[in-house]
Amino acid sequence: MPPPTSDGAPHRTTIAHIAAEAGVSVPTVSKVVNGRPDVAPETRERVEAAIRRHDYRRRADTRRSTAVELVFGDLTSPRTQLLLQGAEESATAHHLSLTVSTPTHPGWLDALIGRKPLAVVATTAALPRSDLAKLAARAIPVVMVDPTAEPPPDTPSVGATNWTGAVTATRHLLTSGHERIALIAGPPDDLPTRARLDGYRAALETAGHPFDPTLVHHTAPTPSAAATAATALLSLPTRPTAIFACSDLQALGVYEAARRHALHIPDDLSVVGFDDLPLSAWTSPPLTTIRQPLRDMATTATTLAISLAEGRTPPHPNQELPTTLTLRSSTTPPSFRPRC
Amino acid sequence: MPPPTSDGAPHRTTIAHIAAEAGVSVPTVSKVVNGRPDVAPETRERVEAAIRRHDYRRRADTRRSTAVELVFGDLTSPRTQLLLQGAEESATAHHLSLTVSTPTHPGWLDALIGRKPLAVVATTAALPRSDLAKLAARAIPVVMVDPTAEPPPDTPSVGATNWTGAVTATRHLLTSGHERIALIAGPPDDLPTRARLDGYRAALETAGHPFDPTLVHHTAPTPSAAATAATALLSLPTRPTAIFACSDLQALGVYEAARRHALHIPDDLSVVGFDDLPLSAWTSPPLTTIRQPLRDMATTATTLAISLAEGRTPPHPNQELPTTLTLRSSTTPPSFRPRC
Repeated sequence: MPPPTSDGAPHRTTIAHIAAEAGVSVPTVSKVVNGRPDVAPETRERVEAAIRRHDYRRRADTRRSTAVELVFGDLTSPRTQLLLQGAEESATAHHLSLTVSTPTHPGWLDALIGRKPLAVVATTAALPRSDLAKLAARAIPVVMVDPTAEPPPDTPSVGATNWTGAVTATRHLLTSGHERIALIAGPPDDLPTRARLDGYRAALETAGHPFDPTLVHHTAPTPSAAATAATALLSLPTRPTAIFACSDLQALGVYEAARRHALHIPDDLSVVGFDDLPLSAWTSPPLTTIRQPLRDMATTATTLAISLAEGRTPPHPNQELPTTLTLRSSTTPPSFRPRC
Repeated sequence: MPPPTSDGAPHRTTIAHIAAEAGVSVPTVSKVVNGRPDVAPETRERVEAAIRRHDYRRRADTRRSTAVELVFGDLTSPRTQLLLQGAEESATAHHLSLTVSTPTHPGWLDALIGRKPLAVVATTAALPRSDLAKLAARAIPVVMVDPTAEPPPDTPSVGATNWTGAVTATRHLLTSGHERIALIAGPPDDLPTRARLDGYRAALETAGHPFDPTLVHHTAPTPSAAATAATALLSLPTRPTAIFACSDLQALGVYEAARRHALHIPDDLSVVGFDDLPLSAWTSPPLTTIRQPLRDMATTATTLAISLAEGRTPPHPNQELPTTLTLRSSTTPPSFRPRC
């Protein structure tokens, strides 16, 4: 560490300190800091370790571009578009541009760092911890939006109240008169899935209904996987009268399974989804679902990332925006119940 | 014009020529060329006019960023995501970044020009001719993708074979035994709409069926507008037995209208869409539709824009990629017909 100054504050670590400690030249440190590819991996690691030890921050923030980077794990999820809208809204309001990328090729992160972004907004679990460390070493703030895995403790994130949303969905079905309510959940290692499963179980048990694991299926978040699970559920000797699908895409699979079983929604089977994608208002019948405000989540995450780049500390680094019930036509109102 | 050189080729116009002709300083020309906002509008116009007259091209192409700009008229169309995927694929393959924006605020184009993009890909009719002229004055190539209006003669574009797709859709219904086939088309001033209407009419007339304008409705490209039109069609004294909707979103509106009329798809009403959006495989029943390769269209347009930036001339500046019939469950196969 450099010696403290007379007022007790440490000297600012310079690039020369980092170079000396890592045993490399100053231009080599500069190359690492600027994400240039022509540095041997072991040299790069040594320099990055020295940067982390000294909490060295590249000072020339004014050389940063005026771009926010929006990183998607992949671009095929129907959430992509809503997240893009929200991020674009915030970037435009701040007179910044928005660059979109996916970590699909090995040089991706170095290319991103080379663009000197003001901040990074990463959707889902797009960025592994090693990438987060590289960005942190360059003082590029990162905010996760809709995190599917536990974000590292020091990474700000913007999600939704998944547990409460699942309680709301399940209670809506319970108050409609349903008792045999199945759950089609996402992959078990996905954090929002876990929250939704817990909320479903909490609503059942606090209403005095036992949790029945035979009514719970974990599937990939696709219509076809959910259709297979729903077909199994609808073939049970005592079939469920309602299915809570943990995403609107999975609800579409439930619709298709019901159609194949000649079951009419909602008279024969009530269905609740989760997400409230734009097209969910136009399923046949229109889908009752839990709305998570994906667009607002991305706006909030982008604005937070920009604040961090401006040196401000967020009051709440890990936010969850509220989920709400969007009531449409895929569940039977209480007046029609019970008929099972 | 600068005098010709001894070999007959004109001297390259310099920034000093432009400045002299426009009666401004060289730094002012530089500001205009670089999209800086601090130039009076009338001065800017004078400089741009001089630039156009001299076909002056900014020489410092090497100072260009390595970004492609993808411009959307708005981000709410469900096509957005497919176009984004295609553009991202091409940009990544060329080791370029992708910046996404919408022309929603007055300084938008100047900000874009200030980023010195390598090329611009504009979806739909996002860019008016005045913007195209500004980009042309700076030698920034522009390619239109999925143009809804006639692209200017010198603007390359990538669309789809809309006319042929509509012929295919209508013939599919005709060979299934339908004769009373309605059309729910987009806005009449939209070029793909016109191509689809013409294709529908051509298929009918070449099969010996008269074109009946009472069976054609123009609506906004939304489910709700199409539902209203379909309700009117299904209330006719002799209702159509099939509806060709000119977009999948409009087909969703037809589904909802059929549900309200207690008509079963496909037994009571056959429906064909256009687009083949990812969710159209998961409507109830799954939608038979004309696939336009939106992702491939954006990949092709982006690759073309990059080629132009590299100084290559495209063999075909205005391309139309093929449309194909995706057969699912919303039309009755010939064996079930006729039953009307």
